[in-house]
Amino acid sequence: MAHGYWKLGMTEHEACFHIFFRRMPFQGNFAIAAGLQSAIEYIEAFEFTETDLSYLRSMTSRDGSPLFEEGFITYLSSMKLSLDIDAVPEGTPVFPHEPFVRIKGPLLEAQLVESALLNIINFQTLIATKASRVTRAADGDEVVEFGLRRAQGIDGALSAARAAYIGGCDATSNTLAGKIYGIPVRGTHAHSWIQAFPSEIEAFRAYADCMPHNCVFLVDTYDTLQGVRNAVCVGKEMQQKGHSFVGVRIDSGDLAHLSIEVRKILDDGGFHGARIMASNELDEFIIRDLKQQGAKINIWGVGTNLVTGKEQPALDGVYKLSALREKDGEWEYKVKISEQSIKTTLPGCMQVRRYSDAHGYCKDVIYDIDLSHPVKKAVDVSDPAKVFSVPDEGVDLLVPIQRKGKTVYTHPPLSEMRDVAVSTMKKLRSQYRRFLNPQYYTVGIEKTLHTLKLDLMHQIRKDSQ
Amino acid sequence: MAHGYWKLGMTEHEACFHIFFRRMPFQGNFAIAAGLQSAIEYIEAFEFTETDLSYLRSMTSRDGSPLFEEGFITYLSSMKLSLDIDAVPEGTPVFPHEPFVRIKGPLLEAQLVESALLNIINFQTLIATKASRVTRAADGDEVVEFGLRRAQGIDGALSAARAAYIGGCDATSNTLAGKIYGIPVRGTHAHSWIQAFPSEIEAFRAYADCMPHNCVFLVDTYDTLQGVRNAVCVGKEMQQKGHSFVGVRIDSGDLAHLSIEVRKILDDGGFHGARIMASNELDEFIIRDLKQQGAKINIWGVGTNLVTGKEQPALDGVYKLSALREKDGEWEYKVKISEQSIKTTLPGCMQVRRYSDAHGYCKDVIYDIDLSHPVKKAVDVSDPAKVFSVPDEGVDLLVPIQRKGKTVYTHPPLSEMRDVAVSTMKKLRSQYRRFLNPQYYTVGIEKTLHTLKLDLMHQIRKDSQ
Repeated sequence: MAHGYWKLGMTEHEACFHIFFRRMPFQGNFAIAAGLQSAIEYIEAFEFTETDLSYLRSMTSRDGSPLFEEGFITYLSSMKLSLDIDAVPEGTPVFPHEPFVRIKGPLLEAQLVESALLNIINFQTLIATKASRVTRAADGDEVVEFGLRRAQGIDGALSAARAAYIGGCDATSNTLAGKIYGIPVRGTHAHSWIQAFPSEIEAFRAYADCMPHNCVFLVDTYDTLQGVRNAVCVGKEMQQKGHSFVGVRIDSGDLAHLSIEVRKILDDGGFHGARIMASNELDEFIIRDLKQQGAKINIWGVGTNLVTGKEQPALDGVYKLSALREKDGEWEYKVKISEQSIKTTLPGCMQVRRYSDAHGYCKDVIYDIDLSHPVKKAVDVSDPAKVFSVPDEGVDLLVPIQRKGKTVYTHPPLSEMRDVAVSTMKKLRSQYRRFLNPQYYTVGIEKTLHTLKLDLMHQIRKDSQ
Repeated sequence: MAHGYWKLGMTEHEACFHIFFRRMPFQGNFAIAAGLQSAIEYIEAFEFTETDLSYLRSMTSRDGSPLFEEGFITYLSSMKLSLDIDAVPEGTPVFPHEPFVRIKGPLLEAQLVESALLNIINFQTLIATKASRVTRAADGDEVVEFGLRRAQGIDGALSAARAAYIGGCDATSNTLAGKIYGIPVRGTHAHSWIQAFPSEIEAFRAYADCMPHNCVFLVDTYDTLQGVRNAVCVGKEMQQKGHSFVGVRIDSGDLAHLSIEVRKILDDGGFHGARIMASNELDEFIIRDLKQQGAKINIWGVGTNLVTGKEQPALDGVYKLSALREKDGEWEYKVKISEQSIKTTLPGCMQVRRYSDAHGYCKDVIYDIDLSHPVKKAVDVSDPAKVFSVPDEGVDLLVPIQRKGKTVYTHPPLSEMRDVAVSTMKKLRSQYRRFLNPQYYTVGIEKTLHTLKLDLMHQIRKDSQ
């Protein structure tokens, strides 16, 4: 497509694209936006290297001729991105159909970065959303992301660690993610540590010698309850040296039953402060069930189901053209119709405004940034028969990130993005936060924009008859 | 753990670990092994950089003291891996419980590489398996991997493209994967291309000018059947210039109904050779259904559900210690018991032997490489009450990959790994290849190894009472 735009002299055509998703991830209500900083770092580093250009030069058409003209390869070799990007800050909840990244600038450039932007933002948003659910189920308990061994590739693990932290996790077991992103790192030992010693108690003793202040003993290698008794025994030896163990970890069996028994043994041993960590295919539903059943678990190690998004391993975010103009021309607004009405897109250059009432956030409205009058009325995005009035005061969600290819935004530290994700949950009533079948949160399309969309659709349908 | 082994003077202890999975991916029967070359490239490049060492040095214990001793950091700074690795070649089908990668060498080294090896091999094996299913459903039709925009991170997309090709896909839409792995690259244009022109037919015409031999027209931007008529019209114009279009793509709506109608329009226009490509949340089940319903689709673009593994986004591969010895000592065989019997492990240094009969592969047996007599009897891995005799002739699946840290194996080209994956399917009877509820394929544990496992389990249970 880029080759085509170049060949047809359309390199100076300007376009406006938006990223949005259509289906609520995990059957919840919203997603936690994440991945922006990673995406912008990709944009900042964007270039065609010599080997990239050689590869493109080597590609052939079906008749054996070069797929791309040499002039296009030369064009790519010196191109610099000059896009305007606006986006919702990471950690912010966003709802279906809301544009949460806007890309404006040369059509060819905007098209070239589509796939990478979608890849980065879809995945991190998915995982931040899952992390928000898991940590809300844990209800204040510490949650450690444990997914490295089963994540989808090396970067699948690293960027999942980043997104999980933004969504609300407290730490990661991925040391490289700790190094790169500054996320707190936590870990315990594996079963193989226990097996490497003649007996479990000797393995605990050896671990205590090496980690006199950080011991979490994995107690289920042979027999969980006997394992805890061994941990208590070694814990007493540690006390005599002025050391203390942090707790124990259970990785198999019935975590409700076992954790209650483990708690008793720890308390009977005098270790009321020792913590119980649990892992083993946890997710938000299992954590909630275990807590309801009185499980005595203080730290949740959540791996595979968190870093892959389990029930829905991809956010269905798309990148859609909504306006186009020739150099210095007028904007032409664009929609795409489809065989499936859910795939029809909105026209314009859009912003999202969020409104609050006494209970917190109450509704969002999508409007065109070139709207000539205040946002007053909106049409419900999921039910065009519902028209509602809009409060006077609202907050615009998209903020300027890049102008003409220069980054004009300072990404806050990851811990601040995490604070946004955690604190905004308090502004969403509990019925909006329900894991399944939440109450519908109203998202509207500003009324004149909705009318414009309908007009464009009718025009296209008329033209194609 | 590495710090502990170093501190306790166990750096020369030698260990044997295996990678295997417990649950059949996607409720099928087997997985297609993949990711080995990527894993070995990771091992070959393994080192602690200066910034890695600084980060480790900066990590602190709960009392504020350094987490790691300086001597350990120095040890890491100069360590070179010296492992012996044996593995099943990529593209080979492997069954639950079968060790398909064996790592033997210094305990500390084998432990350090665990997480990365599992990450790489779990994911690529998962996706090669999914690709095998999807391409078998397509039954000889071309399948193009289309997953970049929704894959789990940049590497999630790249290594999925690699694994999907090994599993049987014909091409990828990921140009960078084409460059890095030499996978054939295929693509079409997006809806935005159509929207960038005043009308669909003008957009097709422009595309035909730029890609006179490679055109696949996306026909569902406004109205699919009208889109095909436009494609036919432009196709006729192309013919007059001696050009030809490859086909059309449908990306929404009912693909069975639409493809039949599209075929009629193409045929009526004289374009009997024009191909119909379909995409839109495809997987092996939808492809099979569409074919049964007479869909006229020649090329399947499969994205999200292929590259994320949809229903099961992680293979549950584990990395388990099975033997240990002090320097120049005797091997001590190790098992891990668990609250869940499925999590109990096998002892020894293992090999897998595959047996065939007149119909193809018939059974596999896991045995200890130090077995002093021929493999004669085996115990069914899923039913210890079943003991069976083993044929005389079988083929050992694991081959030497590294010796003392040097790679002794030449990875075949990706296309040959793909040939293995595709051709071995013919050696598995159809009942073993069924997507759901396949016939159980017999995997046995050589009888003396099984007895040894039971003895070790009893010993541990006795010790912990």
